[in-house]
Amino acid sequence: MKKVAVVGCTGAVGITMLELLEKSNYQVACFASSRSAHQKLKIGQSEYTIKEFSVDACSDFDVVFLCVSGKFALDFGHQLAKSSYVIDNSSAFRYHDEVPLLVPPINGSVYNGERLIANPNCSSAIALMILGPLHEQYGIESLIISTYQAASGAGRPAMTELINKAKVFNDYGVDNLSESFPHNLAFNVIPQVDSFEDNLYTREEMKVVWEVRKVLREPKLPISTTAVRVPTLRSHAESLTLRFQKPIASLNDVKNLLRSAPGVEVVDEPHESRYPMPMTSTYKTSVEVGRIRYNLIYGEYGLDMFVSGDQLLRGAAWNAYEILDLIMNR
Amino acid sequence: MKKVAVVGCTGAVGITMLELLEKSNYQVACFASSRSAHQKLKIGQSEYTIKEFSVDACSDFDVVFLCVSGKFALDFGHQLAKSSYVIDNSSAFRYHDEVPLLVPPINGSVYNGERLIANPNCSSAIALMILGPLHEQYGIESLIISTYQAASGAGRPAMTELINKAKVFNDYGVDNLSESFPHNLAFNVIPQVDSFEDNLYTREEMKVVWEVRKVLREPKLPISTTAVRVPTLRSHAESLTLRFQKPIASLNDVKNLLRSAPGVEVVDEPHESRYPMPMTSTYKTSVEVGRIRYNLIYGEYGLDMFVSGDQLLRGAAWNAYEILDLIMNR
Repeated sequence: MKKVAVVGCTGAVGITMLELLEKSNYQVACFASSRSAHQKLKIGQSEYTIKEFSVDACSDFDVVFLCVSGKFALDFGHQLAKSSYVIDNSSAFRYHDEVPLLVPPINGSVYNGERLIANPNCSSAIALMILGPLHEQYGIESLIISTYQAASGAGRPAMTELINKAKVFNDYGVDNLSESFPHNLAFNVIPQVDSFEDNLYTREEMKVVWEVRKVLREPKLPISTTAVRVPTLRSHAESLTLRFQKPIASLNDVKNLLRSAPGVEVVDEPHESRYPMPMTSTYKTSVEVGRIRYNLIYGEYGLDMFVSGDQLLRGAAWNAYEILDLIMNR
Repeated sequence: MKKVAVVGCTGAVGITMLELLEKSNYQVACFASSRSAHQKLKIGQSEYTIKEFSVDACSDFDVVFLCVSGKFALDFGHQLAKSSYVIDNSSAFRYHDEVPLLVPPINGSVYNGERLIANPNCSSAIALMILGPLHEQYGIESLIISTYQAASGAGRPAMTELINKAKVFNDYGVDNLSESFPHNLAFNVIPQVDSFEDNLYTREEMKVVWEVRKVLREPKLPISTTAVRVPTLRSHAESLTLRFQKPIASLNDVKNLLRSAPGVEVVDEPHESRYPMPMTSTYKTSVEVGRIRYNLIYGEYGLDMFVSGDQLLRGAAWNAYEILDLIMNR
């Protein structure tokens, strides 16, 4: 039985990873910092005792999931990769040429046995499930994204904070104190996710640009993004405006293409008010796509659509789990 | 003293209109359907007795505000305009060539004494405060908008529903019942505002297209919109992607241009986490604009930015109040 370690098991992604592994045939162990070590962690039918992380303690495992900070990953990623496959959920290695950045249904074929593999940003992973098949069929010429991102991207305490703030909201509003976001998020939207770069885009916005280009193997693809935090819990949504090299003969062609794509659920019956939403995409491993229509500017060369996907599953743990599958079945 | 009537005084826009008028020098009366007639309505220091609406009852007033449905406006708008100036907040007359659609700071100069005047859609009115000066200076070539729209656009009960739903949210989520939206809005986002048109855009999305073109007097301006309801209370936000005919020499030029525009507040110190947000734009009559940056696709010919404005004030009642000013000072 293969042995899998989850490092950073007390965070939102770590716990979701354990929930997936708990139903699998792997032998699983949990690691965290000394602060959480020796505590018990109950996941489904299983109870784990958290072990204190060290490179040595992990060296016996076939695969190590890093659900930790970028700094931690940089410090230990390469060392861990000497004895195990390492799947890193941080952004630390995503833009390194020698490290594959994988969304298995889209670019799993580029995987060549590397020991250190990067798991993409949540907004990138969710969008790429749709962008992959569209690019292959019609050739994306340019892409504009505005996101509607859930609290879970800022961690488990962020979800709790949002729920608690919403409960105490009254006619005078709420205070602007927040430990998880730059501002209170309840009944608010915040156009800042992560810090600002020199070009005045946030790092989150640039991650989507860089990662979509890397996964689609189009290093100069024109992309612009606005990333916005909204008061939802664990599913992101994204408004996509796409311009293509080839014309789209019919919207039904697009829907059929996406229906046949793995990990995609077409939810597009607008007259019955059926379209992608955080409320319906939560806990799904597939990405919902709908509101598919010809863009009013680009005509038959453009599409607008709306996608929603579970940030912790498709946007993080489920993608990592698919990478694990890819490694093990190679 | 000029006499002003507010018809539909119990709705979200009607009440906001009364709050503005209560501080003015106009003599104000409130009208509603027989259901609400004879009830008392307390606004600030004033108490009004609601009168039952009829065309005759309103004929004595200099100006009539219609804060009612499009159907009601179509039925009575022209009749009322025989004896009074009529400012209609519905979409009933907005696209009629002979009816001016006014955002006074942007196109007040086109007003020519017409008796029936249309007040724009909230998303249009908020965006136009920014689009107007930019178009005049740089010439907009194309425009892509994704909105983050508050509950108030669906009326006062919608705001109460959202607050109540958020309070009862627990680990099992909430039910999907809603009397105000197509789905529950608490901890959700809904990519449907208004009904769907044949081109699969919502009517709300097309309103923005039609109204921006009309107010800017550019009947063919390429625009595409995605309108999304988010769980905020009364301020909309919008992500704007603009392509211009003329290059932008510096972002400071843009900021200075917008700082000098009436009704605009530049909030753009990203490194101090200062940018437009519903929480800060609520109860303001000006529109917040920030996150101003060169678009990654169009270079110096393009800008991305984020705006937020109070849906009930700048998006409705305050714009109508400015139209009242325009009529009275002509």
